Amino acid sequence: MSLFKHLLRNPTAKSYSYSSPSIIMPSNLILTCLSHFTTDASPSTVQLTQYSGLGPTKANEKPRVVVLGSGWAGCRLMKGIDTSLYDVVCVSPRNHMVFTPLLASTCVGTLEFRSVAEPIARIQPAISREPGSYFFLSHCAGIDTDNHVGFDGSSLVIGVICGSVMILDRNAGSVHCETVTDELRTLEPWKFKISYDKLVIALGAEASTFGIHGVKENAIFLREVHHAQEIRRKLLLNLMMSDVPGISEEEKSRLLHCVVVGGGPTGVEFSGELSDFIMRDVRQRYSHVKDYIHVTLIEALCYKAVVKGEKNFINAKVLSFSQSGVRLVRGIVKDVDSQKLILNDGTEVPYGLLVWSTGVGPSTLVKSLDLPKSPGGRIGIDEWLRVPSVQDVFAVGDCSGYLESTGKTVLPALAQVAERQGKYLFSLLNRIGKAGGGRANSAKDMELGDPFVYRHLGSMATIGRYKALVDLRQNKPLDCVTSLWCGYLKETKRVENGSELANGLRGRFVRLN
Amino acid sequence: MSLFKHLLRNPTAKSYSYSSPSIIMPSNLILTCLSHFTTDASPSTVQLTQYSGLGPTKANEKPRVVVLGSGWAGCRLMKGIDTSLYDVVCVSPRNHMVFTPLLASTCVGTLEFRSVAEPIARIQPAISREPGSYFFLSHCAGIDTDNHVGFDGSSLVIGVICGSVMILDRNAGSVHCETVTDELRTLEPWKFKISYDKLVIALGAEASTFGIHGVKENAIFLREVHHAQEIRRKLLLNLMMSDVPGISEEEKSRLLHCVVVGGGPTGVEFSGELSDFIMRDVRQRYSHVKDYIHVTLIEALCYKAVVKGEKNFINAKVLSFSQSGVRLVRGIVKDVDSQKLILNDGTEVPYGLLVWSTGVGPSTLVKSLDLPKSPGGRIGIDEWLRVPSVQDVFAVGDCSGYLESTGKTVLPALAQVAERQGKYLFSLLNRIGKAGGGRANSAKDMELGDPFVYRHLGSMATIGRYKALVDLRQNKPLDCVTSLWCGYLKETKRVENGSELANGLRGRFVRLN
Repeated sequence: MSLFKHLLRNPTAKSYSYSSPSIIMPSNLILTCLSHFTTDASPSTVQLTQYSGLGPTKANEKPRVVVLGSGWAGCRLMKGIDTSLYDVVCVSPRNHMVFTPLLASTCVGTLEFRSVAEPIARIQPAISREPGSYFFLSHCAGIDTDNHVGFDGSSLVIGVICGSVMILDRNAGSVHCETVTDELRTLEPWKFKISYDKLVIALGAEASTFGIHGVKENAIFLREVHHAQEIRRKLLLNLMMSDVPGISEEEKSRLLHCVVVGGGPTGVEFSGELSDFIMRDVRQRYSHVKDYIHVTLIEALCYKAVVKGEKNFINAKVLSFSQSGVRLVRGIVKDVDSQKLILNDGTEVPYGLLVWSTGVGPSTLVKSLDLPKSPGGRIGIDEWLRVPSVQDVFAVGDCSGYLESTGKTVLPALAQVAERQGKYLFSLLNRIGKAGGGRANSAKDMELGDPFVYRHLGSMATIGRYKALVDLRQNKPLDCVTSLWCGYLKETKRVENGSELANGLRGRFVRLN
Repeated sequence: MSLFKHLLRNPTAKSYSYSSPSIIMPSNLILTCLSHFTTDASPSTVQLTQYSGLGPTKANEKPRVVVLGSGWAGCRLMKGIDTSLYDVVCVSPRNHMVFTPLLASTCVGTLEFRSVAEPIARIQPAISREPGSYFFLSHCAGIDTDNHVGFDGSSLVIGVICGSVMILDRNAGSVHCETVTDELRTLEPWKFKISYDKLVIALGAEASTFGIHGVKENAIFLREVHHAQEIRRKLLLNLMMSDVPGISEEEKSRLLHCVVVGGGPTGVEFSGELSDFIMRDVRQRYSHVKDYIHVTLIEALCYKAVVKGEKNFINAKVLSFSQSGVRLVRGIVKDVDSQKLILNDGTEVPYGLLVWSTGVGPSTLVKSLDLPKSPGGRIGIDEWLRVPSVQDVFAVGDCSGYLESTGKTVLPALAQVAERQGKYLFSLLNRIGKAGGGRANSAKDMELGDPFVYRHLGSMATIGRYKALVDLRQNKPLDCVTSLWCGYLKETKRVENGSELANGLRGRFVRLN
């Protein structure tokens, strides 16, 4: 069983084999010969692919877990997976995990970008050391589950290449990838495919724009480090531009008007950070323009707030934000252009910086996947986080949701859900691996044990100046201490209607996972 | 004497006045009326300008020192200038100073970018606090020295605007600026001008490309933080790309071939850092491709090395670099394309990362200024760092050089020259200010004291792995200790021919300024 790589971009280049460099042949030869293959076992399993890549694992190799994505779910899984049982291959356009709850703090310099990003190679060192484990800086372009055939003799593909009888790979499900070249002129995207024994889809979600015109072009989201960098850069640039002689009062106010759309945790925390930044840094370092800078948080009636009792939560926000200098406006955004946005009632809101954080929805790739979906269009999973229609495929995090048939409601797109799903799944996979079910299709009839159960531990949003809003209704008593959040929490506000308020949280912390 | 702002971009906007907001008029009115001005004092001094801006300082204001640039010279000057005597206005496309000797270390993550950049507002806090002091994120587009007229009654301009007799500004030399908007779509460049009482030109220099085709398009320089960021990004991207299945051996070697052109201190230090990075981080974190990565330093025969006895210095480099895994190639680059460069002898050198550090030359702006030049095309100065052809204009740092008439040789473009010129000049300006000569044209006949004398204190280049090359020929004995360089210096190499070698430098440091 050899590993075939089909080189399209450079047909004269030598075929490059990762695990078994012994069989090397010009790629054009492979492409020509393969079309004449026949096999007694499964004639339809031999396909011409456009890609080179990592072929199905061989008997002397460890089974391969392919993880798509490097967010909370994917990284927690990779961190815990037993690399003596599996080879791990991660495919993601981002070579680090972002500690999203602290991302807002990096926009104004409270934290450095480096502090909220952890390289994948540090989360799972095997990825850069083990010969069969890799990280690929790539987009996933598609998933091929049709050819996922078990590891038994019957499915071995035997073929004749140019007169020589060879035992070829058995076929396996695979992931089609395209490298991210970050628009570097010297590099073109490169296509390849990776066969999996187990596939974990942890592709996350995309920021929702509700189809509102101009959002993608003009607003900045707050989901990645580069978003935070762009926000910081634009904020500073606007501060400096507004100080230039000759700029009109009106333009000055526009440049220094920071508008945040969406009153969820991200929007709330970013507004709080901005408010802090204005109260301290701007007053000191940009004293010429300190009276012109304002923050407005726009929240539509139809948006759900951070917790279920949103009405009261929002009231608490109004109370806190009016003290912090953040204006809270109720409204639905109708249209966005490069210098102003228009609300449903026709109000025009000129802005210099627009941050959009109205929650997330399924990504284009997730929508395009030919897999059963949960209500809301996420990848449908059962209680064991499996995609039940296909073998050996799991989905975790924001991209996944319980199938209607499970009778469970789809879990919210939160870090604590994703993180605990990742944790559950690595235990499950390790257990399967130890029981000898690591190979493709070899865990069909295995007992999987307890299903995944999610217990919400509460929600918290910092609103700047050592204040936070906490909802502990579904939570256990506070019993953990960490230093991460301590600095922020000096005092919290009482939220009525069952949304319990933790007073004197300083030095304590809400255990999120 | 009022402050006129001429608004071009938005004629309906209110005129914005910084120091005296009492007189506000529509800009189109000013533009129309000014063309009818006559003045008994100096008819030619009234000009129509395209710009709004900061007008000449008034009697109740402090004199204004305008500093162009925020490099070693400009920042040292701003740091030391007495802000009780002067208002300081800095115009620069960069809102921070870069500690250039450590920039190479940021490319590979030894240091964080933040560690080598210091905001101007921290170097001179008055810039963000004093009402008459500013930092403008702008390019200097031109300097108008013709209208620099003294602060006496005779040069007051009296005019009639729309029937009202008004006392207008006396004219002063001014700087024409254009804001840097960093390609943000929502901001367009804005033009304005700033009148000066004293002008300090510290515009620095540009990287030399010797007119070689393709350098600007394909090579990365190493002079700014964003250059270092680009190098780091490209280096990591190439490391990841080379690990993708299907990439040919040839392409892999190309992607991981880092070529540095220029064997001056920057090139030497960057090569050393790269070598360190390969020896440590790449081996650990990119072990799949660790044998493919190489560094080549190309040095042309015609380039001057870091010190005068360059032949021996280069020999020392050869010795040290062969131990560090850096290949040293003698050659002249003829042409550069996106994936390879061609040497004079026709050799093709494929590369994945190309860093260009062949020294600096006068910038386009400096070349365009209508001021006498020194040999080499820099702004000509006398021994007191003045531009002698005009009043109240000084030039320091890489953009300036002694006029031939002074009989002195042009000083090298080094941080230690620029820094000490800045230091000398703030003392001179403070002395002038204290003696009442701060206003435009009021220090004509003042005794300036001792001229600037430069004493070279030695040169040093780290070459990675706790090694450095040091030339102390024109230096005093080592007598200072600092922590900055200590970590690097464990051992240095002996350089013959008078280039004394400091053995056992660990814990000591070469005083650069």
